[in-house]
Amino acid sequence: MEVFQLIQGMARTDGNLIQSADELDKAIDHIIQLIQDACSLYFMGSYPSSVFLSITACEEVAKAHIGSYSDGESSEQKGRNAFRNHKTKHQMAALPTVPMGQRLEDSLGKVELRRIMNMAQNGGFAQTRESALYFQRENGNLVVPSEKIEKQLARSMVLFTIEVFDDALRGMTNHSCKMSDITDALFEQVKNT
Amino acid sequence: MEVFQLIQGMARTDGNLIQSADELDKAIDHIIQLIQDACSLYFMGSYPSSVFLSITACEEVAKAHIGSYSDGESSEQKGRNAFRNHKTKHQMAALPTVPMGQRLEDSLGKVELRRIMNMAQNGGFAQTRESALYFQRENGNLVVPSEKIEKQLARSMVLFTIEVFDDALRGMTNHSCKMSDITDALFEQVKNT
Repeated sequence: MEVFQLIQGMARTDGNLIQSADELDKAIDHIIQLIQDACSLYFMGSYPSSVFLSITACEEVAKAHIGSYSDGESSEQKGRNAFRNHKTKHQMAALPTVPMGQRLEDSLGKVELRRIMNMAQNGGFAQTRESALYFQRENGNLVVPSEKIEKQLARSMVLFTIEVFDDALRGMTNHSCKMSDITDALFEQVKNT
Repeated sequence: MEVFQLIQGMARTDGNLIQSADELDKAIDHIIQLIQDACSLYFMGSYPSSVFLSITACEEVAKAHIGSYSDGESSEQKGRNAFRNHKTKHQMAALPTVPMGQRLEDSLGKVELRRIMNMAQNGGFAQTRESALYFQRENGNLVVPSEKIEKQLARSMVLFTIEVFDDALRGMTNHSCKMSDITDALFEQVKNT
């Protein structure tokens, strides 16, 4: 798997990004806040801002997960840190175990789930996070985020992000299990919209 | 003024970022949504996400304002577009007319207002937007956004951003005047917290 090669290529040092269970719990609380914000904005109908925060939460899950045993530096390319590269973080978030969760496939459908995984793996998230924040000219027209990002994508992204969190971090600490109760409840709420 | 030199140095072309009143109104609606999101998250106590969206709204105001008569390309440095540079957008948002509004000084106080203007002009917004989204190691400790960004900064940033919008775009179209009623009401709500 390409993503595993990428992770294997990261240097092992004594300076991991996350260095204790307490630090991991702090990072988890931050991720939960981002997920809650993404859900709140989704329920308020502000889909682009919601998508942006979902993607940010995916990035932070990848950092907390892989950062527990790496500092993100590449062993082959000095000075390139995986945790500072949006596309790399999106790839590390979309591990092949994520779409194996039955609830995600049940909520999104196979085709939509494949589309979101494909976006995460091939630069689509990086493009989407820009379109979610900024207006720009495209083929002679001014295009604003609300024209690019609709309810369905915001719904898919929140559910996907919760599953990414669940897949990578649930069970790592006692605190992560408690926090999963919050994200499980949010998953059900968003799923039923 | 440095910021005016910067704006004067931008090339005049037929390809302005904003090319009609309708396009400006579309951009304004997008900015209003960002301001409303920043306010909602502020009232929910999610201060870092609120600050990030306030800064994004400032960037979009600068683009809509200066983009009405420029495409953002520098006439001196080819290939450098002001609308793709965070620091430049922050400088263009913090025009010297912004702190002249009495309501902003009344709400923030002179010292805090000077601090925010200074942040916008000297790269502080660029640093803050990163600290608002991402956890990172600092001097041997893991630091999360909620430790860096507190209620006071989130309040100042929302009020500052509303004034930036008001100063740059209110009165440009009929629609902008209607939208200012929304931001005026938000200003009062946030001011009284």
